[in-house]
Amino acid sequence: MPRGESRKGPLLRVRYRLELRRREGARARAEALAREQTVELDAALVPAALRSRIPGRVRVLESGPRAARVEIAFDPALVAGDLPQLLNLLFGNVSMQSGVRVEAIAWPDELLATLPGPRRGIAGLRRLAGVPARPLLCAALKPLGLAPRDLAALAGRLARGGVDLVKDDHSLAGQPCAPFAERLARCQEAVARANAATGGATLYLPNLTGPAATLLERAARARAAGCRAALVSPLLVGLDRVAEIAAASGLALLGHPSLSGGLLGRRHGLAPELVWGDLFRLAGCDGVIYPNAGGRFRFGLAECLAVACRLRAPLGGHRPAFPVLGGGVDAGALGRWRRVYGEDTVLLLGGSLLGRRDLERAAATLRRQLEEAPEQ
Amino acid sequence: MPRGESRKGPLLRVRYRLELRRREGARARAEALAREQTVELDAALVPAALRSRIPGRVRVLESGPRAARVEIAFDPALVAGDLPQLLNLLFGNVSMQSGVRVEAIAWPDELLATLPGPRRGIAGLRRLAGVPARPLLCAALKPLGLAPRDLAALAGRLARGGVDLVKDDHSLAGQPCAPFAERLARCQEAVARANAATGGATLYLPNLTGPAATLLERAARARAAGCRAALVSPLLVGLDRVAEIAAASGLALLGHPSLSGGLLGRRHGLAPELVWGDLFRLAGCDGVIYPNAGGRFRFGLAECLAVACRLRAPLGGHRPAFPVLGGGVDAGALGRWRRVYGEDTVLLLGGSLLGRRDLERAAATLRRQLEEAPEQ
Repeated sequence: MPRGESRKGPLLRVRYRLELRRREGARARAEALAREQTVELDAALVPAALRSRIPGRVRVLESGPRAARVEIAFDPALVAGDLPQLLNLLFGNVSMQSGVRVEAIAWPDELLATLPGPRRGIAGLRRLAGVPARPLLCAALKPLGLAPRDLAALAGRLARGGVDLVKDDHSLAGQPCAPFAERLARCQEAVARANAATGGATLYLPNLTGPAATLLERAARARAAGCRAALVSPLLVGLDRVAEIAAASGLALLGHPSLSGGLLGRRHGLAPELVWGDLFRLAGCDGVIYPNAGGRFRFGLAECLAVACRLRAPLGGHRPAFPVLGGGVDAGALGRWRRVYGEDTVLLLGGSLLGRRDLERAAATLRRQLEEAPEQ
Repeated sequence: MPRGESRKGPLLRVRYRLELRRREGARARAEALAREQTVELDAALVPAALRSRIPGRVRVLESGPRAARVEIAFDPALVAGDLPQLLNLLFGNVSMQSGVRVEAIAWPDELLATLPGPRRGIAGLRRLAGVPARPLLCAALKPLGLAPRDLAALAGRLARGGVDLVKDDHSLAGQPCAPFAERLARCQEAVARANAATGGATLYLPNLTGPAATLLERAARARAAGCRAALVSPLLVGLDRVAEIAAASGLALLGHPSLSGGLLGRRHGLAPELVWGDLFRLAGCDGVIYPNAGGRFRFGLAECLAVACRLRAPLGGHRPAFPVLGGGVDAGALGRWRRVYGEDTVLLLGGSLLGRRDLERAAATLRRQLEEAPEQ
């Protein structure tokens, strides 16, 4: 969008599904949406020189009496490398209307090149965990309410059993029962000691939350304590902070989906593969946790596979990121999920592992299972 | 939640509306929700010492065949002054289920005291704008696509007309057509010059977006340029950054609702008065912009009034914050909205003011209208 010039090169093409009111035309509705997301003025009030450049260009793809699919092609310079503004352009003001769903996005390379993306990605996280090829095993330290010494004992058992990634539960913040600094020190020490004993390379991932002014300091503390990775909830702390934390601390980051489900309505919202697949990855997550089909959440297998595909698909020059399947993955079904999702996957176990009496042994059994060649 | 002790004092009571599946009992569903948001484990796996303390305490308020209202009372120490964790506790994991709506929250003072809240509030913003009692008039600089000199010319006209708050449109980020530094300098200068000419105290509010690593620097620049207030979109940059920006820069902050509509579903989400009323205010917004009834958005008058009530209601020791009514407020209806919302209101005009041929004069007419005593 150089001043006064009209734009060349590929546009940011966004496909919306729109529910139509009675007698509402798909084109008129789509053009109103394109203006709402950009100039926020009636067409008559937009200066002529801007009219063809700033609101997105509308194409009606299909239209029925109640709903339509439209594509709006935006100038990528409207984003200007600014992730909050990207969210705003895609679903800012229209989030306050109804029946608007972002279904698909075609990203121009010019725009992708201005967004951070993962600093480590799948290959980088594999190097840190010392796992060249198989799926990674991840487990969470919980429940909230345990003291640091109990969380650390749990972390030690999981690490001795060979769990690759031992992460804080995402609800562990800085509660008085387990303050951040003490939890970090004890859990990291327990994992380091287990690694020294087994020759393993388990990573402990502390959870980084708030207050905002302490976030980078906590990340730096984690790195100084020897952590190489951490957990962050992009929608809780702000999607735009992921890359900032990664760049400032050098930590690899797993993104947790807390709160994001609210944006994923089937009639009004964004498609899960766009939020967890494209946006969390573009924000800088090296792996993205999301609820697998068949667990405690509402997403079906096709949706969950679509997220995994987007996390691993080519996306400008950005590194692929790990799908991290959680939300009630059963320890007895690891083989099945491995076949479904393939090797570049992290399998996150909660209660179905933590409920075992001999945790170390149960973890070791799962780890051996993943070390065997995959069944065909 | 001191270690090992059971908790005394008021709890954080959250009322949820739950859609029930066939044969699902309200109590069982509510107890599963209380665990999902805290321990994230089946009851049997939660150590006995934590079972009565950590998952919220459930009360079924009413229950029908398809839906129930329940109250879950959480220990406020689970929040630990951490706004991301508060969001997580209220609607983190359950955002990924369906048919869960947060309808009401009773806040214990102990928790409120740990959250930031507005540093200026209504009284502070009134002092900055030199307006002791009447509703404030606000206008937006748009459309996106204008060059800084054109935005500044617009700002000057609005300020000479006596508009109290002249804000960037929330879509102005750092686009090449109007880079932040140049826009800031020119618009602030235009408003300062108008104030010098008229003896007025119009405030110019630049929009603070991303990238995250530049946010505090941009806020400091705005303050150094003479701005006393700014615009920020809490859901785009992270709700938890509002107080950080305010504390670091000393700027008063108006919060813009971009993206937040996605969290306000009628069947699944949070009530608008909780997000825009309580949460944006607790995060530190001195005023909260939201779409008024009758404009381009979907919210009805009762909902919009409820937001205004929550923004101004007692909330621990926190200052009240201004409701800022936008989203298509008609310049011809100022008197009506003033009667509906009362004097502690900011009226934000977009197209219906910007479309006037003589903008300065149109603004001055509106300003005079607000300077007259309110009709009864």
